[in-house]
Amino acid sequence: MLILDGNKLSTIIRKEISDKVRTFCKTDIRPPHLAAVLIGENPASQAYVRNKIKACEEVGFASTLIKKPESTTEEEVIKIINKLNLDKEIDGFIVQLPLPRHIDEMKVNLAINPEKDVDGFHPNNFGRMALGIPAFHPATPSGIMMLLDRYKINTDGKNCVVLGRSNIVGTPISILMSKKTTPGNATVTIAHSRTSNLKEICANADIIIAALGIPNFVKSDMVKNNAVIIDVGINKIDDHDSSKKYRLVGDVDFENVKHKVSAITPVPGGVGPMTITALLDNTWKAYSKTIK
Amino acid sequence: MLILDGNKLSTIIRKEISDKVRTFCKTDIRPPHLAAVLIGENPASQAYVRNKIKACEEVGFASTLIKKPESTTEEEVIKIINKLNLDKEIDGFIVQLPLPRHIDEMKVNLAINPEKDVDGFHPNNFGRMALGIPAFHPATPSGIMMLLDRYKINTDGKNCVVLGRSNIVGTPISILMSKKTTPGNATVTIAHSRTSNLKEICANADIIIAALGIPNFVKSDMVKNNAVIIDVGINKIDDHDSSKKYRLVGDVDFENVKHKVSAITPVPGGVGPMTITALLDNTWKAYSKTIK
Repeated sequence: MLILDGNKLSTIIRKEISDKVRTFCKTDIRPPHLAAVLIGENPASQAYVRNKIKACEEVGFASTLIKKPESTTEEEVIKIINKLNLDKEIDGFIVQLPLPRHIDEMKVNLAINPEKDVDGFHPNNFGRMALGIPAFHPATPSGIMMLLDRYKINTDGKNCVVLGRSNIVGTPISILMSKKTTPGNATVTIAHSRTSNLKEICANADIIIAALGIPNFVKSDMVKNNAVIIDVGINKIDDHDSSKKYRLVGDVDFENVKHKVSAITPVPGGVGPMTITALLDNTWKAYSKTIK
Repeated sequence: MLILDGNKLSTIIRKEISDKVRTFCKTDIRPPHLAAVLIGENPASQAYVRNKIKACEEVGFASTLIKKPESTTEEEVIKIINKLNLDKEIDGFIVQLPLPRHIDEMKVNLAINPEKDVDGFHPNNFGRMALGIPAFHPATPSGIMMLLDRYKINTDGKNCVVLGRSNIVGTPISILMSKKTTPGNATVTIAHSRTSNLKEICANADIIIAALGIPNFVKSDMVKNNAVIIDVGINKIDDHDSSKKYRLVGDVDFENVKHKVSAITPVPGGVGPMTITALLDNTWKAYSKTIK
């Protein structure tokens, strides 16, 4: 059984990116610059943004954090976006989700200049991805594709089951995995809350990509021998033995599943770090286009 | 066994559209106006465009056919598109595919103003559709959804297998069928040329949507009892008994499959007419938005 180590692979890919930055920015060319917009005090969002900023520093990118209070209005957020859209020093930016309830996330998403949309959530990028033309791909699916690619997991003609149909993970990864690409070219089934025979469907899968957000949902009896398991879930569960009083688990019952599979991502340390690495990769792409 | 009669349903829906046109355009408001761009002499394309123009007349839409020779350059086509994009009298337009080889179809597609893109192939519409926000949906998938809707086919939680992953049919219908909508909300498997266990996958399907372009590909032993069959294929095969020396067949072996299914579309007269009806519906939508 192979552990698909997102931390280790991220270190390698981030090193490649930082080498490119160093080589390219030898002279007085400015480095790539990512901005992150964070509205409100959601602790998980704060941690995510902190990690993204830290990753930028690691690879030699410039970064800007725009932090605004929970009370910020939709118009104010749109104004910030319009400014970032025009700012020639910013190559790409993200608006950390979820936004406070009084702000329409889709409206905010639609305001982003697709050429700076390094989260890949704008319809223009999403549509280009679905049509198979160059685009910024959403970071989590893109990170999963990198993982499959670098670990040389054969996906061609395989039965791949995607659990979950969110716009952020399930839907885009199901699209990417079905395309005539490597990795990809799989027979993809997208399953969700309305799927009736989920156990049977999973038990027939060569590859399971679990993105449901339900702790330990995929049990050993739902998994075929030698399957490949990609666990996108990051769920907090109570753990009184831990000093934090919680621990993180995925959507897959890792301890009981790992023995029978050929490859599996751990949680934490699997898809999570790859998501940030994919964001750095998108930012590099946005930068190279701008600088050219 | 129920025949999903696309001709009959199209007549009903086109009557609804023409009623709307008559009611709305009582005064001196101009009717909806669709333009079609046809490059070259492809006989199938000529027939398709002719049918679209005829359908426009049927429902009281204005239409314009822009016909140019095979030798038309890409720049000339883009120029025509730019003009149509700006023309306030045109609500929507299509560029009939395939285009001559020397013209890049994607470049042409990207030049179309998404608000007039009644074929729904521009990334902006495609992405909006995939993200579940209002958009022009490609005509064939949209026609299939109308058919399922009006015939009250229950798709909720059903296993739906889509054969083919084209940008025009397979990919968009697989996305639409997986969304939390009615029709939709199905567990969707998208299968294609690389799928190994196709027979088994089809035999487990409650709904098969065949869009491969291979005559009579789906045989009786690939179909579950009481399945619902949507046949998107329109294939010409030799027929020396016919005066035309050919006849049209679908991707499904209709004669041998029809006995065991609960519902099936015939070819011709199933999905085909619904595609044009969906185009009229998109044009009406473009018009209502413009006129408002």
